[in-house]
Parts: sequence; structure tokens; C-alpha cells
Amino acid sequence: MRIDGQPTRTIAPLEDGRGVRIIDQTLLPHRLELRVLRSLEDAAEAISAMRVRGAPLIGATAAYGVALAMQEDASETHLEIACARLLATRPTAVNLPWALERMQRTLAPLAPTARREAAWQEAAAICEEDVALNAAIGRHGLTLIAALHRKQGQPVQVMTHCNAGWLATVDWGTALAPVYMAHDAGIPVHVWVSETRPRNQGAALTAWELARHGVPHAVIADNAAGHLMQRGDVDLVIVGADRVAANGDVANKIGTYLKALAARDNGVPFYVAVPGPSIDWRLDEGRAIPIEVRAPREVTHVTGVDAEDKLREVRLTPASSDALNPAFDVTPARLVTGLITERGVLVAQKAALRQAYPEAECP
Amino acid sequence: MRIDGQPTRTIAPLEDGRGVRIIDQTLLPHRLELRVLRSLEDAAEAISAMRVRGAPLIGATAAYGVALAMQEDASETHLEIACARLLATRPTAVNLPWALERMQRTLAPLAPTARREAAWQEAAAICEEDVALNAAIGRHGLTLIAALHRKQGQPVQVMTHCNAGWLATVDWGTALAPVYMAHDAGIPVHVWVSETRPRNQGAALTAWELARHGVPHAVIADNAAGHLMQRGDVDLVIVGADRVAANGDVANKIGTYLKALAARDNGVPFYVAVPGPSIDWRLDEGRAIPIEVRAPREVTHVTGVDAEDKLREVRLTPASSDALNPAFDVTPARLVTGLITERGVLVAQKAALRQAYPEAECP
Repeated sequence: MRIDGQPTRTIAPLEDGRGVRIIDQTLLPHRLELRVLRSLEDAAEAISAMRVRGAPLIGATAAYGVALAMQEDASETHLEIACARLLATRPTAVNLPWALERMQRTLAPLAPTARREAAWQEAAAICEEDVALNAAIGRHGLTLIAALHRKQGQPVQVMTHCNAGWLATVDWGTALAPVYMAHDAGIPVHVWVSETRPRNQGAALTAWELARHGVPHAVIADNAAGHLMQRGDVDLVIVGADRVAANGDVANKIGTYLKALAARDNGVPFYVAVPGPSIDWRLDEGRAIPIEVRAPREVTHVTGVDAEDKLREVRLTPASSDALNPAFDVTPARLVTGLITERGVLVAQKAALRQAYPEAECP
Repeated sequence: MRIDGQPTRTIAPLEDGRGVRIIDQTLLPHRLELRVLRSLEDAAEAISAMRVRGAPLIGATAAYGVALAMQEDASETHLEIACARLLATRPTAVNLPWALERMQRTLAPLAPTARREAAWQEAAAICEEDVALNAAIGRHGLTLIAALHRKQGQPVQVMTHCNAGWLATVDWGTALAPVYMAHDAGIPVHVWVSETRPRNQGAALTAWELARHGVPHAVIADNAAGHLMQRGDVDLVIVGADRVAANGDVANKIGTYLKALAARDNGVPFYVAVPGPSIDWRLDEGRAIPIEVRAPREVTHVTGVDAEDKLREVRLTPASSDALNPAFDVTPARLVTGLITERGVLVAQKAALRQAYPEAECP
């Protein structure tokens, strides 16, 4: 998407063919700093330190990490070391093992002399496929937004949660792809950006990328979501998904379930934008999805910039109070109006999902 | 309630009979500073600057503000000036005009020489009545908690929202009165404290007062409320109310409605602790309750302490992003299991409310 008019991807190979450029997302929204990765270690550090985040972007960065490793040493041993090193960076992102297995499958059979070039090509292919998946999701979502606009003749008010925008992917994003396509097509859209406590990915990342691309939006406290729906100020909700079970239950950032409940209570359509690879066919239902519990410090402390624009972390709670920090929740399929996939908008039910993905291998 | 073992009220007259002691709540949870109010102007400033907050405590402080004014000048003109000055401090708290009208009604007929002593007595009476109302709410709520404890034989997990604890009143609180009574009676309770963005009254005030009194608790992001109920980790929800309509609809801090939806979806009882005077008999339903929209800065900025324990305000959002900040929402009576009043636990329906308050003057 565009940063102040300039088309930009979250990750891109350098013209010299010896490095990769990323955006250091730990500094957003307060600083836009590009960072060059020149080695396996650079790539591993970028993922570990969450300079890149979002499952698709983590996968793409890992793929380029293997390419960087191959230009250091294209031996089979080093290929294995590189994959092991990158796999250990983050425990849960589903795209990380997927991208590494794919790189290894492609490179292992090749002669070491051929690996370097092939690695760069495969990493680029992974990125292009991510962009294509998201663009397809965007087109299907666009038809929903366009229909609402035709019906009401007013700007379409979209609510989202967390960051499922282009910063979480290589480009377009998942939940925000339909928004960008609508905006670029001249359909007036306005986005309610839930700040998404405790890590504030909405306030920090979604607000920033919408602002840079020029999409009208306003940040709200997560608590305000229900009230805005009661007031009739939300036409549809679109969120992303970390994992979708075979029955359509959706694991996504903590708080998604509360938005789905409010949408149902107020007759607001609730959509989940999800690429096919995020459907976990081995899981019959959402209850089986493991929920990561993260450090209490993400609740008790927060980082922002002070009046001198200096980054500072402050504590919000009494020093003696404990905190609990579950990072995801599961929204039951019954609350989901539809899953916006690259193959169309699907009913969140087992039969509809199986029909759209007949090739899926179910246990 | 107790601060580290010491019984304390949020407001109390000094022994010298010439001033009032408050807790400066703007500094909580990071600093416990007592502050002495010696004049009408001190009292007005304390309310305006939110050193005291919570509708009952605002009413009590205004009453003492009149008493302080009477010791400066007990003339009828000064009585009127004092009431006008105090009324202008906060726009919405329902107890503020109520307390001022009561002070004026009591003092105006008296000879100026009698007003000073009468003002102190009336302010003290207002405080005692608040404590008695809350204690009665506490006793009725205690029976609910005790019954749950008998049934399950485990610590009772209570979820609350915002601060409806003793810091919002003279003592006991509304929503937390049952919790303190259960704790003091030896019934094991654990409180899930929603941080309550954007102003964080849960993280700052509720966590602080529970910690000081020694009640086990953990702070959570507001987003986590639904997930904890899905997991079966919440036995009941108790919140306060800013205003209740004659049909039982409840206006309370933004985000209350989302908790009520999650409670309903998971079969968790959802109670609202509310003293009779907070029922607005002139309003047929909650839709008519005006919702205050506060400054965007409460969403975009937050205050905490840094590693050197220095208070700092930081910005969380991109400088170019707007924010919307509705401060309250309305929970429909259909989602309320019961209203815990000083007259017992009532069904949130017009007939039940009218029966419990037969003296209420309805338009």
C-alpha cells in the first residue's frame, strides 16, 4: 500500500540482490525506520524482536532469512542450521514452519551452487502468493462494501480489530484489503479502529497504515465497540484470524469475541477475512485451539512517546497488582456472518468450507 | 475500607472542625497523598480536577464545600454563591445538584449564626447516609456471593468494571461492597479487574483499593472479559451504574454492555449494584439517557509512572489519527440478572422497581 503516496511493501529485496528491506514495526506509529537485513542472524533477530509481525509477514521474512543464509554458505548443513534457527524465533505463527518447510523442500535437492539463486526466487514467490491471496480476499470483500454503499448511499462504516492490514502481510492485508480496494475504487469508507489492548496494534499499526494510505478513520477504546453498534454507526465488522477450525470457529486477537457478540445483538454483519492456509482442517472446533497467555507486563505497562517525542514505557497499575494476559479468544462460528477467503465469501460451516477447499486433507 | 490495615474513608472532617481531608485520586495508584480542603475554593477545585470522583463522593464533597463556605461567610448571598460555584464544577454527576439542593434547603431558613454548625452536621449526615446505603447493598450482594460459595465450595470469581468501589463513594462502594463484605466474612473471593480504558479506573483505582484492603485480584484488558467467561472463570459480574432508567436499563461506564453480552452468552449472572437515588424515574428507558462524549486525548494519551517512578503522559496513536471517546453505554434491562439495591435484589423491570420504591414520584 502507499506511505504518503509511495507504493510500499512490508518486505522487499534490495536492488543489489544481497539484502532485504523491512519496516521496523516496533517503532510504529512513532517512527518510520527502514531496516536492512543482510544475514541469517539479522532476519532471525527481526522476527524475534517483532520488528516484523503478522503470520504471513513472519513467513515471508523467514523465507528471505533462508536466502540470506544461502549467500553466506549454501551447504546442506547450513540450510538445516538456518531453518532451525529461524523456526526457534517465534513459537506460534503457523506460517513460519510452513515457509521454512517449503524453502527446505525446494533447496535441499539442488546442488549447493544452485541454491542461492533458487532461494531468492522461492522467497519472492512466497511473497507474490501472499499478495495474490490477499488481493483476492480484497476483491471479494470489496463487493460486500460496494453493495452496502449502493444500498445506503453514505460512507460505509467498517469496524476492525487489531492489525490485519498490510503491515501484517506482504501487501494489502487480510481484513483491510477490502477497505483499501474500496477506498482506491472511490467508495467512501470510514474505519473504526479498536485500539486493541493490551498491545495496541490497532492504535499503533492499523491507525498508522490507514493514515499513511489516506483512509479516513478514528481510533476508539475497545470498550466503545458495542455502543457504536447500538448507535447504528457501524455497517459491518471485518477482522482477521489467527486460525480457523474446520467448523468455522475463529481464533483471533483477544476481544474479537466481544465484537462478534455486539454485532449479533445489533444486526451488524460480522466478517472474518482469512486465507485458505489459515484454516486448520485438523481441528474440529475452536475449543481445541490453544490460547497463548502472554506476559502480564503487556497489561501493566504501555509504551508511547512523551511531549518531547521520546519513546517511554510507563506502568499503569499498582506495583502490587497481578495481571492476566490471554492473547486470543475464540469466536463461535454461529456469530460469524461469513468468512471472506480468496475463493469467495463462505458460510462459517464445515460443509461450506469443505466444498470450497475440496483438496484439503482432513484427518 | 482499610488502607494497609487502617480504616479509612474517602472524605472526613478534620478534628479541628475547620477543614476536610480527602485522598487525591488523580495520583492513584502511584501516590497516596492526603489533601486538606480549607475553603469553598479548595472543594470546588478538588471536584473540578477530579481529585475526588464518583457520583456519591462528588455529592459528599460538595456538601462539605458548602460547610467550608459557611465558615468563611454564613450570609444568604454567600450560600447562593457557594452552591452556584460548586454546581458548575462537573456537568453530569446526579448527586451534585441533589446534595447542593439539600444543603440549601436545610441552611437557607436558618439564622446566619446557626448555619455554620448546621452545615457541618448536614454534610456529615449525607456521608453517613451514603455509607448506610452502600452497606445495605453490600449485605444483599453478600448473600449472592455466599450462596455461590456454598454451592461450588471454591473461591468465588467476581468480575467488575471501572471503579464502583469505596473510592467512588464515602465508604464500601456500590459494586465492591458485596466483595468487601464477603472478604471480611472469610468467604474467599477473587476479583477480575477490567482495566477500563480509556481512563483506566479499573487498573488505577479498583486494583489499588482491593490491594490495600487485601482482596485477591488480577487486572485484565477489557478485551479479555469474554474469554474468561467462556473458560468458566467468572462466577458473577457486578458493576455499578451512573443512572438506571425506570424500566431497568443501565447507563454505566463504556464497555459495560459488552460484559453484559458476554455474561448472557455464557450463562454468567450479571448484577448491577445501584442505590435507589440513582434510579431516574423520569426516564422510561435507557435510550433517553444522554451519553457524554469526552476528549479524544483520553484515548490517544495515557499517564503512568516510568522506571524512576515519575508520572509521565505518553501518546499511543499516530499524531494524525483522530479518536472518538464516548464515556458511557447503555445495557438493556434484558441482559441484567438483577439490580442489587439497598432494598434488596430486584428484577430489572418497571413493575419490580415501582414495587420496591412505591414513594418514587414518576411523571
